[in-house]
Amino acid sequence: MASGGGLVVMVRDWDQPAWARHFAKCLPGRKIAEWPDISSADAIAYAAVWRPDPGALAEYPNLKVIFNLGAGVDHLLDDPTLPDVPLVRLVDDSLTAPMSEYVVFQVLLHFRRHLAYSEFQRQKRWKPLRQPRAGEVGVGIMGLGTLGVDAAKKLAGLGFDVAGWSRSPKTIEGIASFAGDAQFVDFLQRTDILVSLLPATPKTKGLADRSLFARLRRDGPLGGAIYINAGRGATQNETDILTALDAGELAGASIDVFETEPLDANSALWHHPRVVITPHVAADTDRDAAALAIIAQIVNFEAGRPLAHVVDPAQGY
Amino acid sequence: MASGGGLVVMVRDWDQPAWARHFAKCLPGRKIAEWPDISSADAIAYAAVWRPDPGALAEYPNLKVIFNLGAGVDHLLDDPTLPDVPLVRLVDDSLTAPMSEYVVFQVLLHFRRHLAYSEFQRQKRWKPLRQPRAGEVGVGIMGLGTLGVDAAKKLAGLGFDVAGWSRSPKTIEGIASFAGDAQFVDFLQRTDILVSLLPATPKTKGLADRSLFARLRRDGPLGGAIYINAGRGATQNETDILTALDAGELAGASIDVFETEPLDANSALWHHPRVVITPHVAADTDRDAAALAIIAQIVNFEAGRPLAHVVDPAQGY
Repeated sequence: MASGGGLVVMVRDWDQPAWARHFAKCLPGRKIAEWPDISSADAIAYAAVWRPDPGALAEYPNLKVIFNLGAGVDHLLDDPTLPDVPLVRLVDDSLTAPMSEYVVFQVLLHFRRHLAYSEFQRQKRWKPLRQPRAGEVGVGIMGLGTLGVDAAKKLAGLGFDVAGWSRSPKTIEGIASFAGDAQFVDFLQRTDILVSLLPATPKTKGLADRSLFARLRRDGPLGGAIYINAGRGATQNETDILTALDAGELAGASIDVFETEPLDANSALWHHPRVVITPHVAADTDRDAAALAIIAQIVNFEAGRPLAHVVDPAQGY
Repeated sequence: MASGGGLVVMVRDWDQPAWARHFAKCLPGRKIAEWPDISSADAIAYAAVWRPDPGALAEYPNLKVIFNLGAGVDHLLDDPTLPDVPLVRLVDDSLTAPMSEYVVFQVLLHFRRHLAYSEFQRQKRWKPLRQPRAGEVGVGIMGLGTLGVDAAKKLAGLGFDVAGWSRSPKTIEGIASFAGDAQFVDFLQRTDILVSLLPATPKTKGLADRSLFARLRRDGPLGGAIYINAGRGATQNETDILTALDAGELAGASIDVFETEPLDANSALWHHPRVVITPHVAADTDRDAAALAIIAQIVNFEAGRPLAHVVDPAQGY
């Protein structure tokens, strides 16, 4: 393998042939395979994957590294046949900037009362509403990795009173830091708009449930609490979201990720007047940026240097 | 008048008695009058106004300064009986921050294809769309005063390719500057999303018309041009907006200000599927901040120091 190990591309939902062509162009001389072609499985050292079929990676006996083409790796860790080789998350600006756009947009949508004005527009009704100041509104970000920190800083730049909650305490200028189980309730009680960017792990599964929503600040300037999830659907309980909306524990929500995707046509979330649904588009992977990040890692790896962003299976991210 | 000249409050649409009470609390010992009470007109040295009735200010013979409670003074300059005393615009953070929120929100709304996703949600349709990168999108801001510069910087911070157009050239880090009639077409041709924050003056009246829309970039990553107006309604031609939308010269619009306000119930803008209407709420005046700014100016003025933000009637702002 003078030209280096081959790479197999396995992507669900996206355009797999386009990804394979892209890697072929960027890695000239290497074997590039597309799942489910296992005719040259022995020659494959790397896999570039997005939600691959369970068991698929086990078909490649000489695999050395698995590169995930997104930030969330929970689907991979759920696969009991996952080969015991480094699993690398995608961390690059091509995910960070769009995620912050999405979060800033959805926070502003609720803060600037867009759903109400949109309804007034349908009624041809000219009705200004009292607009609170950003500094009066507590925005709380669950998950302070690369994505959470960038979103927190951009929201603070718009004047919001931003706090973050993470496993271990963080020091970020202008952002209040809450950490661990001990500070979770304090974090929720100062939060008018909750933004979840959490990975799906055994610890976060179903975390956003009614008991959580009930602890958010309801008597703030928005007259209710808002829930935004652009992390992973497995961290939320969708039945509880609907119950909390109807009970007044939540005033609104913007949800990009769901327990099951695509969201079932029978879900009452689709037509709830205070819910914004998007089809897992908060931060989609840019093909050029992802391929460049993976190629840089392969070059490093083959030169004997350490891989970056390797997942710790015990933490789940 | 040991305690200084009195102040008359004239505000249309807003809560005039609440404003008068607020000034009475902040300026103890001074005469505070409410229009149309002219019983102590001689004692009035200052007027705090928002869209006062034409002719009203002329009822106060000893007026020394008129303080406008918003940024736009076109309604005042249209009044031929306006007393020849300094007219002061409101410039303070209580207008700047909300205006930038509005602009950032509406830019993101179109950029992140919210109107399409909102329609998909109504149809219970899970359909991801290709999302361009912010850096591929040219945002052009007309009007680079305090409001325009702040909005431009915040949009640049989100990664957009931002340019500004103003009467005279400006140097703002990270923002391309275009100035005057000579560079107007160049400015429009690199703009996918046009944001107007212009004041209403004889020069800007009806500026946003079909010939302007036709020059915007249409073959950019959004597949069409977007028009956002949070400045003044007199700067736009609403018939032309509708024509341009239907002719494909505009792909969408967000409009907060109108030729006539409230927007007429018969306007086809209300129900256009690619238009977002808000009822002149982009940046409403914060009572505390406005009163503080005006009191500071009165203190300066009575100490013989110059007033800030005095309107030049020849320029119209």
